[in-house]
Amino acid sequence: MPDIRLFTEKDLRRAVPLDLAAVECVEAAFRALATAAVIMPPILSMRIAEYNGEVDVKTAYVPGVDSFAVKMSPGFFDNPKRGLPSVNGLMVVFSAATGLVEAVLLDNGYLTDVRSAAAGAVAAKWLARPDAKRAGIIGSGTQARLQLKALTLVRDIERALVWGRDPASARACAADCAEDLGLEVTAVDSIAEVMGASDIVVTTTPSAQPLIDASQLRPGQHITAMGSDAEYKTELAPDVIATVDQYVCDHHAQCLKQGELRAAVAAGAVSPDLDYVEIGTLIARQRSARGSSTAITLCDLTGTGVQDTAIAAFATARALEAGSGTPFNSDR
Amino acid sequence: MPDIRLFTEKDLRRAVPLDLAAVECVEAAFRALATAAVIMPPILSMRIAEYNGEVDVKTAYVPGVDSFAVKMSPGFFDNPKRGLPSVNGLMVVFSAATGLVEAVLLDNGYLTDVRSAAAGAVAAKWLARPDAKRAGIIGSGTQARLQLKALTLVRDIERALVWGRDPASARACAADCAEDLGLEVTAVDSIAEVMGASDIVVTTTPSAQPLIDASQLRPGQHITAMGSDAEYKTELAPDVIATVDQYVCDHHAQCLKQGELRAAVAAGAVSPDLDYVEIGTLIARQRSARGSSTAITLCDLTGTGVQDTAIAAFATARALEAGSGTPFNSDR
Repeated sequence: MPDIRLFTEKDLRRAVPLDLAAVECVEAAFRALATAAVIMPPILSMRIAEYNGEVDVKTAYVPGVDSFAVKMSPGFFDNPKRGLPSVNGLMVVFSAATGLVEAVLLDNGYLTDVRSAAAGAVAAKWLARPDAKRAGIIGSGTQARLQLKALTLVRDIERALVWGRDPASARACAADCAEDLGLEVTAVDSIAEVMGASDIVVTTTPSAQPLIDASQLRPGQHITAMGSDAEYKTELAPDVIATVDQYVCDHHAQCLKQGELRAAVAAGAVSPDLDYVEIGTLIARQRSARGSSTAITLCDLTGTGVQDTAIAAFATARALEAGSGTPFNSDR
Repeated sequence: MPDIRLFTEKDLRRAVPLDLAAVECVEAAFRALATAAVIMPPILSMRIAEYNGEVDVKTAYVPGVDSFAVKMSPGFFDNPKRGLPSVNGLMVVFSAATGLVEAVLLDNGYLTDVRSAAAGAVAAKWLARPDAKRAGIIGSGTQARLQLKALTLVRDIERALVWGRDPASARACAADCAEDLGLEVTAVDSIAEVMGASDIVVTTTPSAQPLIDASQLRPGQHITAMGSDAEYKTELAPDVIATVDQYVCDHHAQCLKQGELRAAVAAGAVSPDLDYVEIGTLIARQRSARGSSTAITLCDLTGTGVQDTAIAAFATARALEAGSGTPFNSDR
């Protein structure tokens, strides 16, 4: 068998920073999902209640991409008590032509972080007002930091507000972002404050209870809800989808199962069957779904296997170019 | 992050030969599936028609087993034209308590071969007549060889007949088995010949068309149908399940989707809802489902994630004991 290549988290962090190239990679993946004969099976999901853990496995085949990735994402939420990160995982890259293993990306979840943040940038690019300057971030973890950074890649963000359930964590997040991005970033005490002052709001929490309702929406605002990716999660009250001027999702079928759309449909607030626009369709048409500067837009992101295949192929190519990685032969 | 351990195909072949210990490992897995709070999500399956390939991903959590495996099985059926094996793959072993990656088993599909053959041994152990001496194998590939070997672990097999679509391949298979097992093994020209002379028949092909019908069954015979593991495969005519005295499956829900049960239900030959016995139930009761020496029994094996988790944990423990494997750290 030919050598496979092992890449470490460091190799991959060096190869794929969160930058415009990563955003373009994810944008191309969404376009393919909406326009090409992408094959994306439903997520394999296993919950191990005994350990407060779950593992999600995603994959997709994108015509024209020579490889496909199988991404395994374990999330074990008692890990921090043991001094371990909650979210880990790896990706395995296979040749799309032969099924042979080409690479193992031991990224500990890093590439998932990047492709999720890049999706937030893509959503803002195609839905937020071009003159959006004020960002609001709900949540104070890794994605809170990365989503704000991602927004700065596509809009001239001048200041940001951060809300977190734990005020100390929100302050730490704000301080980190201010230093990293050179912006004015402030931790605030209430979600209402974030909603009242932000042109773009990104929700990044694993909440199982709605955090935002329709009364808090402001004309011209764009919301990206990226926290919900499971049957029990939701960050938006059911009336939010029913109220916004334009709802866009990353993948209709998947959002019906795991996104904000699931909760809104379950509450009877919206129909499951409307022809909901997918973000890839906007990209293919090269047209925003924002009708006016006062329209309220919403993007529901659940995270798709096509993003994983795209970022894995991109990371592998970049890391190989850089000469990193360890060759390994399974025959030896 | 702690080191992970990489094991090659050779490490794993040395650690886990097809022997009674492997059979007991798979038997325990089936018992757990029928009696414990096993979590086994549906198979993630992706077909890439463009390359005549597919990939199946299986997993399961078994209470009491400290780890779970995610097994990726690509099958790319044009590979032999390129001088490559059709079936490949690997397993990733995660801690069940933390979700951290513990090991990557680069087995190129070897452990799947072993656990599938071991399942054949378990089926024969609990269903075939104790005095079964004559084996019949339909198919002439890797599983044909391994299934025959597996039968010799649980029954005093004296002679075997092999049928393959390609007579030369069947002759090669028969010669290999005769040499490996010290039995009289003969390649024959027709399936009817196999059916007419065998106490135990194992079907191991990827056929999409039935190979055996009910008129060919003989009193006292046991059939293990292990080839069908996908929506389009079937080796038995629909009347076979309807005719046998005892039908047993590895997993009811999975056999309804991917096993012989699927085709028989689709043809209207049997009901999907009967209380079909799973092999693990027999093991838990320590009782064969064979009523008499003339009863005809059938076991429908689709291959389950619980077998993968069990064999992966077993292989990892054995390979570590042997001091094999390469430590690797994803932080470096």
